[in-house]
This record gives sequence, structure tokens and C-alpha cells, in this order.
Amino acid sequence: MRIAVDAAGGDHGPAIVLPGALEGARRYGVDLLLTGPADEIRAALAKQNAAGIDIEVVDAPEEIGMEDQPALAVRRKPRSAIALALDAVRDGRADALVSAGNSGAVMAGALQKLGRIRGIDRPAIAGYLPSMKGKTLVLDMGAVTDPRPQHLVQFAQMGSIYIERALGVSNPTVGLLSNGEEPSKGNALVQETFPLLAAAPGVAFYGNVEGNDITRGVVDVVVTDGFTGNVALKTAEGAAALINETVRRRLTANLWRKGLAALLYPAFREARKQLDYAEQGGAPLLGVDGVVIISHGRSNERAVASAVGVAKLAVEGDVPGTIARLMATLQPAPRPEMALG
Amino acid sequence: MRIAVDAAGGDHGPAIVLPGALEGARRYGVDLLLTGPADEIRAALAKQNAAGIDIEVVDAPEEIGMEDQPALAVRRKPRSAIALALDAVRDGRADALVSAGNSGAVMAGALQKLGRIRGIDRPAIAGYLPSMKGKTLVLDMGAVTDPRPQHLVQFAQMGSIYIERALGVSNPTVGLLSNGEEPSKGNALVQETFPLLAAAPGVAFYGNVEGNDITRGVVDVVVTDGFTGNVALKTAEGAAALINETVRRRLTANLWRKGLAALLYPAFREARKQLDYAEQGGAPLLGVDGVVIISHGRSNERAVASAVGVAKLAVEGDVPGTIARLMATLQPAPRPEMALG
Repeated sequence: MRIAVDAAGGDHGPAIVLPGALEGARRYGVDLLLTGPADEIRAALAKQNAAGIDIEVVDAPEEIGMEDQPALAVRRKPRSAIALALDAVRDGRADALVSAGNSGAVMAGALQKLGRIRGIDRPAIAGYLPSMKGKTLVLDMGAVTDPRPQHLVQFAQMGSIYIERALGVSNPTVGLLSNGEEPSKGNALVQETFPLLAAAPGVAFYGNVEGNDITRGVVDVVVTDGFTGNVALKTAEGAAALINETVRRRLTANLWRKGLAALLYPAFREARKQLDYAEQGGAPLLGVDGVVIISHGRSNERAVASAVGVAKLAVEGDVPGTIARLMATLQPAPRPEMALG
Repeated sequence: MRIAVDAAGGDHGPAIVLPGALEGARRYGVDLLLTGPADEIRAALAKQNAAGIDIEVVDAPEEIGMEDQPALAVRRKPRSAIALALDAVRDGRADALVSAGNSGAVMAGALQKLGRIRGIDRPAIAGYLPSMKGKTLVLDMGAVTDPRPQHLVQFAQMGSIYIERALGVSNPTVGLLSNGEEPSKGNALVQETFPLLAAAPGVAFYGNVEGNDITRGVVDVVVTDGFTGNVALKTAEGAAALINETVRRRLTANLWRKGLAALLYPAFREARKQLDYAEQGGAPLLGVDGVVIISHGRSNERAVASAVGVAKLAVEGDVPGTIARLMATLQPAPRPEMALG
């Protein structure tokens, strides 16, 4: 299996992405296809231990930055790292893409080059939040800000397949994010979606869940619009940062506390590791016809390495193919007059 | 000043609300009007030290529970604690209401009995989240799940007045909660609201803010729809609970750690106090013609006491009157033919 990695992507570029990709390749036993400025990649590779990893380098002289307009970036820059990596996935020279680059450009480019799975109207980003029981998959995380009810149903179906095929969670349950548990709660979108989810094939619908249920781990998959999902994820990150900083300040307020806290460092490190989003590393873009893993722009090496693992699991579980097969069973049969043309 | 307290409200009823109300009355130097089953209130009062507090008890034999339909509860049960307390505010026998009861019933009842301030289409609940700089006011927290852009503008105006008049924050800044900072980001509602907020009288508009900016304290007031606000608040609470529990488990994993952690207890208590929502105690319902403070159903004594303080500050700052005056300047002048009848 060969994973294409956008070596130019991310806030730190090849300096971080490259060692992360190598670490991931080694850990998960995959080959790499690296796209980006070839000179830079080769120079960086020379400084790394890449022994035993089959690496293909594809030169991508064009650069897509955070300021590029997502919808047009890949079309305007066909020789960018994202565009060439997507070409490799489309043509079968790579099995998946990992990118920490402009996520809007990755999404739009994936739609243009790989296409949507038939039956999926809007691809969605599926990310994790840590929970009392491990982690909870939340989608959408920002791809579709104003979905319609049937889009949320597709998110639920894709999320269920992903978590089952890539993570081995059998019979995953799905909750609909709302402002109250009762079926009558929610905004108009949620109220319209509730009965559709209750009747949706391939979805074990639990009912409405609230914001705090995400981290409680009440369900395996939480479905929401991309606007709310993005706000929820970032609010949780912000709350974590605030708590972290507040506790840190109190624990370093004097030398006595500093000394005690230093002795407890292993406990804090364990807690942080358990809660750290970098452990996840990448969020799959579900609904496009290929495995595409979007990594955080400020990803560190560990995050990129984990994202390679996320990609591998999605390829092994044939997530796109499984979504396509479920969708095919749900498509109305072609009308005879149409078939006859 | 006399604050009406719904003594029957909350998950714990008079046993918690009553001592909390007395504590609040003592701390903030206000009189009380307590509504609820008079026998129960008097029996509970006999066990408390109520010396020096002017207390009026209004018997409310009817009970509004969490299962009562909010929109109808106060009309169907005119002799409930919420209904009679609202009557007292309307008739000037009390200056504000504090209730930890069915918040939907409080909102609907306040609309029915106190009415909306002219120019405000939808009252909103304004709550706090702790931030790096103190706290951030967020509205709406759940009253209006599907607002229109002009409603969000009114939220911004009311939130600015509240935080200035009740909390002494001068020239408060307002951010619009979105899934990205750029003006082009957001769902349809946010994109339509952005230019309106930029031009709104009485609003120092900062621009879009993201979920993590709430706890960073980037602005004084964050405006959002009640669905997203509710999800964000609860997700932050959930993240805090998860971190709390994860750290607690690691700190108590063995006796050595337990001992060290016990010595650091004061530091953790200080951090918790700084972050605790109970310090806030109650969220004002802004836009109704009177001061109404909604307290969390699971409020403890300290939260109820704080809510009495929140009520006092809103009364002293004449928040409803100030909102009414701003709105009056924004109303189109009555058309002559209408004035002539």
C-alpha cells in the first residue's frame, strides 16, 4: 500500500511533514508517494533515516497557500502538491492522500479529481473528540455549513460505515446533536432530520444528544451540520486550553507547588496523551471516491504519522467502496424509459 | 430592592433554593419575595437564619414540572411559583425574578406576563463562559434556535447594554460566532448577519470569532443562534468534565500520586473556583420588559445566591429600560396617517 503525502502542506512544511510521514510509513508498514518541491524533499530526505521505506517523489513546483481560493486552487495550480497527489490517488499510483495543507483546497480538489460517491450529495469531514469511553466520531466538522436533512442522514450512514470498517466498532450508534434530548428539541434542521434518521437504513439511531454527551461517549457517532460541528470542536479545544492554562498557573504559583507538580508530571503527561487530538492526527473526508485524510494545519510530526495510520485503516477497510455499496442499494432503480434512452 | 425567587424551582426545590436565596439576600442586601408552597417555605425558613431579611411569602399551590409544556405552563397554572413571581414583577411588588425551574416555562411566562421590549423581536438568554481574561458573555444560549439576521443584531445590542450597565464593561466588543475568522466564513445566517452587525448602532463589532476565541476572551460579547450557543456551552462543559475526570484518575492512580495531589488541593480548588459556572449562577433573559434571571436546574446554594446578585446588578443598571431607550431611537417614526387613525 502506498500513501500519498502532501509534503508541502501544513504550517511547517516539509520540515515537519516529512519526518512525520517517514515515521508513519515505518510504524504502519506502508510505502510513500511524496509531492512537493522535489529538491527540498530530497534534501530533507537525505537528512532522515528512510531506510526500508519505498519512496516515490513527485515534483510539484506550484504552491497552494492558505490564501488561495479553495474552489479554484487545484484547477489553477495543477502542478501543486495537492493536485498531483490527488492525481496519483485517482490513477491508482497511491491508495490514499494525507494533507495538512489548505483544507478547503483539498476538499474541492478531491471533489474535482476523485468525484463524489454516487448517492452522496455532500462529502463530510469526520473528526474525533476524546470521550470517557475512548473517542467519539463527529461529522461534519466544517465541510457543509448549511446541509439539508438528507445530507445529515448520509453523514450518519458514512460515519457508521467508517467507524465500523476502519475502526472495528461493531453496530455503532448514532446521535443527532441538539440542544436537548427530547425529539421535539432542536433547530428546524434537527427537527426535520430526526424522523429521517430514525428510519434510515444502515443507521442505529440513538436519538438526540447534547453537547456534553460528545465527551461522555453516549454514542459512537455524532451527526451535525459543519458549522455547529466546527464550533463545538473549537469550543472544546478552547475550554481545554483554558483549563490547562488556569491549572498550570495555579500549580506554578509558588516554589512549593512547582516542586510538587513536577513530581506529578508523569500523571499530567498521561492525562494529556489520553486527551490529545494529535493522537488522532487526521480526519477523513467521507463521501469522495477515494481515501483522503485531512490533517490539522498545525500538525506536528506525531500527528502526520498518525494520519498515515488513519489512511491505512480506511484503505484496508475499503471505506469508499463500502459506502458506495450501501448507497447503491438505496438508489432508485433506473427508470426503463431512461435506460432505453 | 425586592427580588422574587421561585422557591419551588430547580432539581432540589426549596431545600437548596431557600438557603441560596437567603444567602444571596444577605450578601447583596436585598429583600425577598418567595413563591412556592407556603407551608413548605415557612417550615424551611424556620430552620434557617433569616434574621434581618425582609421576606414576603406568596403561596403557590400549583406545580410546574420539567414535563410541563413550556408555552402553556404559566397560563394553565396561574397559581404556580413561576406565574405568581412574574405577577409580582409585573405589578412592581418585586424588581426581578430568579428561577431555577423549567426554563422554557419561565421564558414563555415572562413573554406573556411582562411582554417584549418594543423593538425586540426575540428575547435571548445571555450566559457566561470563563475566559483567559475573566469571562465572555454569549447569547443566545437556547431561547431562539432559528433566529434571523436582525435577531442576532438585537442580541448584540442587548448583550452590549447588559455587559455595560450590569457589569461596568465600557465599550464592549462583539464577535459573531463562526467557523472561521474571515468575513466570508459562516453558514448562511452568519454571512447575512455580518454586514448588518458591522453597521448596527450600539454595537462595537469585532468581526467573526471561532469557538476557541470564546475562552480566549477575544471579545466581551459573542453572538450566535440559540442552537449553536447551547451546543457550544454544553460541549465546553463536557470537555471540562472529561479533563477533570481524566486528570483525577491519573492523579489517584497510586498512593504516591494521591498524597502529592492532596498537597496540591488548594491549587486545584483555586483553578476550579476560577472556572466554575456556579460563580455566575444565573443567565439573564434579555428583551423582556423586566429583569428575569434563569438559573441552572441543578443549581446549588451558591449558584442561587449568585443569581440574586446577577438580578440586583441588572436592576441597578436598569438593563430593560436602557434596552428600551436604545430601541426607541431605532424605531421608524410613526407614519402620520397612522397617528391620525
